[in-house]
Amino acid sequence: MCELLGMSANVPTDIIFSFTGLIERSGNTGPHKDGWGIAFYEAKACRTFHDPEAACDSAIANLVKNYPIKSNIVISHIRLANRGKINLANTHPFTRELWGCHVTFAHNGQLKGIKNKSLRGYLPVGTTDSEHAFCWLLGEIKHAFPQRPATGKLKRFIKARCDELKDMGIFNMLMSDSKFLFAYCSTKLCWITRRAPFDLAKLIDKDMSVDFGQETTSKDIVSVVATMPLTENETWNHMHTGELICLSKGEIK
Amino acid sequence: MCELLGMSANVPTDIIFSFTGLIERSGNTGPHKDGWGIAFYEAKACRTFHDPEAACDSAIANLVKNYPIKSNIVISHIRLANRGKINLANTHPFTRELWGCHVTFAHNGQLKGIKNKSLRGYLPVGTTDSEHAFCWLLGEIKHAFPQRPATGKLKRFIKARCDELKDMGIFNMLMSDSKFLFAYCSTKLCWITRRAPFDLAKLIDKDMSVDFGQETTSKDIVSVVATMPLTENETWNHMHTGELICLSKGEIK
Repeated sequence: MCELLGMSANVPTDIIFSFTGLIERSGNTGPHKDGWGIAFYEAKACRTFHDPEAACDSAIANLVKNYPIKSNIVISHIRLANRGKINLANTHPFTRELWGCHVTFAHNGQLKGIKNKSLRGYLPVGTTDSEHAFCWLLGEIKHAFPQRPATGKLKRFIKARCDELKDMGIFNMLMSDSKFLFAYCSTKLCWITRRAPFDLAKLIDKDMSVDFGQETTSKDIVSVVATMPLTENETWNHMHTGELICLSKGEIK
Repeated sequence: MCELLGMSANVPTDIIFSFTGLIERSGNTGPHKDGWGIAFYEAKACRTFHDPEAACDSAIANLVKNYPIKSNIVISHIRLANRGKINLANTHPFTRELWGCHVTFAHNGQLKGIKNKSLRGYLPVGTTDSEHAFCWLLGEIKHAFPQRPATGKLKRFIKARCDELKDMGIFNMLMSDSKFLFAYCSTKLCWITRRAPFDLAKLIDKDMSVDFGQETTSKDIVSVVATMPLTENETWNHMHTGELICLSKGEIK
């Protein structure tokens, strides 16, 4: 299996604290050592960092952990391989272009028979069930909506396609089209929204705390989505099976 | 304008030496301080690093300069903005998927009227003439060849489309479809192939030498393509206007 981490914020925000907790699970407090990746959005574009090495041993992850890249939307993934070899092509998140925007996707789970689903336009580069699912989903969206539709329509369409994927196995996923962060829960996904008055947060996986009151302004709103809670002294909202949330500027829309 | 750097090698090879020379030109020995990027291929996939900051001041460039990522094909670009703002979306190289492979592109020059060329399928995320040209070129290739054609056919097709682009201004470019590195010269591009017996090479832009005899085996073949020669004691081959070269495994095919 794998672990997912996503962030949506109303001001460009770094993800050093949450990412530090996540990557402890890539060999120290968890077994997800088969590669990792992260995508940082700036407007319609994202930049990604990928490494097929364990994040906790990766010089690139070490840079990301120490260098505050500020972004409104972030998606990260640490991998424990089940389908597809350990190599760069199979390292999440995956990115394609849709409507002149980068779309980024990361998945936790397995999907039986996904490769029988025929693809429209987008082809996988690697061999994972996850990337095949992403290419299928994106092809369906582009076919239905050659231009970006109204948000409600898009949400309903994505939810219906995700329900179809969930019925093929386990499908917890994070996806962003640069405007929204979508999170879909099949078995395990939770979220938290932080806003003023900010408080101290303490990681579960490492002896590290941050006082968000010192790091933010009173107008900042930041939501974090993760496979499992990353902090021990905050209350995370656990999503239920078949639930899709759509985040924008730090809040659920 | 901008500067380009490409590499093709028959064994996974790092590009630390050449990249170190290139990024001196991003503020120290040259003015190309408006962002930089680099793509490293591993089989059909590539990982990229992008930064809209000057490479010579960039923590990410510093990592790339010191951490030997070994690859068979590399494309890098340092930018001096002329068309399109300085931001992430406008930072080369650009990547899309074609035939289930990552295709990466970087451009030096300007193209007048390029945005009048209508696009098939691939849309730009940023506002540069370069990304528009890339999306146009890729759309033309995919339309003509839904599957990968024979190499000779592909080369002739790319050369004809590049000739068309060159007639709109200045079009020096590097592109890889994961199998080949294509280099097209409009005004300025040169290359060198290094093979046994290897010798000492000395950068022009920085007091740095490397003895490739110590770093390689006698079977290694590595070609480097750059806007201007990177070393002062080697003979680089200057390409002529309208010339396309296609490199594979370190050699011109």
